[in-house]
Amino acid sequence: MRKLMNGKAEFVEEMLAGISLAHGEVRRVGPGGRGVVRSQPGGGVGVVSGGGSGHLPLFLGYVGPGMLSGCAVGEIFASPSQAAIAATARAVDAGRGVLFVYGNYMGDILNFDAAALELEAAGIETRTVVLADDVASAEEREERRGVGGLFFAIKAAGAVADAGGDLDAVARAAGKAGERCASVGAAWSGAQLPTTGALSFTLADGEMDWGVGIHGERGVERKTMVTAREMAWDMVAALAGDLGLARGQSVAALVNTLGSTSLEELYVLYGGVHAALAERGVGVHRALVGPWATCFDMAGASLTLLTLDEELRRWIDAPARPVLANVR
Amino acid sequence: MRKLMNGKAEFVEEMLAGISLAHGEVRRVGPGGRGVVRSQPGGGVGVVSGGGSGHLPLFLGYVGPGMLSGCAVGEIFASPSQAAIAATARAVDAGRGVLFVYGNYMGDILNFDAAALELEAAGIETRTVVLADDVASAEEREERRGVGGLFFAIKAAGAVADAGGDLDAVARAAGKAGERCASVGAAWSGAQLPTTGALSFTLADGEMDWGVGIHGERGVERKTMVTAREMAWDMVAALAGDLGLARGQSVAALVNTLGSTSLEELYVLYGGVHAALAERGVGVHRALVGPWATCFDMAGASLTLLTLDEELRRWIDAPARPVLANVR
Repeated sequence: MRKLMNGKAEFVEEMLAGISLAHGEVRRVGPGGRGVVRSQPGGGVGVVSGGGSGHLPLFLGYVGPGMLSGCAVGEIFASPSQAAIAATARAVDAGRGVLFVYGNYMGDILNFDAAALELEAAGIETRTVVLADDVASAEEREERRGVGGLFFAIKAAGAVADAGGDLDAVARAAGKAGERCASVGAAWSGAQLPTTGALSFTLADGEMDWGVGIHGERGVERKTMVTAREMAWDMVAALAGDLGLARGQSVAALVNTLGSTSLEELYVLYGGVHAALAERGVGVHRALVGPWATCFDMAGASLTLLTLDEELRRWIDAPARPVLANVR
Repeated sequence: MRKLMNGKAEFVEEMLAGISLAHGEVRRVGPGGRGVVRSQPGGGVGVVSGGGSGHLPLFLGYVGPGMLSGCAVGEIFASPSQAAIAATARAVDAGRGVLFVYGNYMGDILNFDAAALELEAAGIETRTVVLADDVASAEEREERRGVGGLFFAIKAAGAVADAGGDLDAVARAAGKAGERCASVGAAWSGAQLPTTGALSFTLADGEMDWGVGIHGERGVERKTMVTAREMAWDMVAALAGDLGLARGQSVAALVNTLGSTSLEELYVLYGGVHAALAERGVGVHRALVGPWATCFDMAGASLTLLTLDEELRRWIDAPARPVLANVR
């Protein structure tokens, strides 16, 4: 096992304990402390996400001014419990309702929906936006997985919430960002999981999986590894049709390491993405390059593009201070 | 080769091109654009670092308000040229002189010293602070490598420079931080370098190298992999004597991934570091957990501790906005 840890049963608890010891700007709430909220509440509509552990800075790393009010935390790759979600929502509710924004996975939907019913019965209004941005995972949009696009949906919702918007306005912002973004990823080695010590999948040297998710899912196609330039070109091409990218448009681009791929490589990739978009007459208004949604030490990268209009540009540019991510 | 890149000869140029396309807050200067400076100069004493590529966010990622004015960039693991260093210093000089702050490597010392002579002849005053914080690399302090401690020296110098301090005051701040910090690292797999495709070193499963540097140098001792708790204890013990840690003291702790070790694991490690320090009666005033000085996809982590007094606490807490790092 090439992992720095104590026992696997304590892994998530010890990670959360370390985060709350290191960062006084967040605190733990709910049963087992499986909710993480801002220590200084924003006072507006609550924006709550959640999901399995093992993807930092997604999900809980996005708690902070301008982004999430709180986050419910599950075991590795497992949905947070209904109780953790409900406790997080109660902790952040300031009487203006709570938006749930998370990725399209069955377990998460079941538990978030159950928590929403529980909260409704207690007089806390909720709305839900489910992200399904991974174009490689399914033809039909509603069947797709949620991956890096969550960043943009959370950023938009947080901007509107912190500006005093009401629950419908916050939900509309997350939904609009979610509908206007798409993602694709590729990996050239699997992740070693702290739960099992096994690799999530194995590739020969010089092979890559196109269309991987962030849970160590195999890709949709096994190919020969390509150059960064070809990767950028293929990723932009995969997203362009889906987003209807047209000459003169402006996008935000999120270039993400899936784990062990270095920041140096990500910037080489970003140069290719910028060029591939320029060839299509599309400008990049904002580039976010780094770790955004990871899977331990998986070698790979993903690209998420968001097509901007004036409103989205304002939301994406609004100041934010998530606890575990470098948002500028 | 499990690296996302085009040719190895273009790697550093393409990385720099990607960074400057992505981040308008920095711009490239000098021959080959091998200097990176703030687009909006601070106006005070210049704080300039530099070193080989392959350690992001070190070095150039620390350019930004409250940290570096500029950075000279070398090829992978190779010193920046005298010309790049001198051009960077000229670009940031506002008539108040320039501090050079970098790690203790022979090539860097030769080129920075030559650049300092060139600048002196041109009427630009310089001072130099060389970091030598890696306790595992040598008994004698002046023979040690510079690693994660550079973060603290740059942070202190940048705080004083941006507050309007003169060249001596800025140099004193970097020197004081450098003298009061110490680092140690361990790795459980080598890095694959884009230059050769080879692993920097190989370890059997369950083995680790204690005392590694950030260039894929072998450690000083090969051991059986330990738990995160033992790792934290051993790292704190290795630094405590060197720093003269005493009950009632307060430190800043920098927990660093060497590459592919996940943020989840780093926070498990940080919990152990916090506990090991608490047992010695030492409190953590500020924790910085993440990528700070890396070596591509090396699996491993390092700990740097800085013993604080009132002045250092103020410098470390001062606001900063480095381009590629999440400083809070």
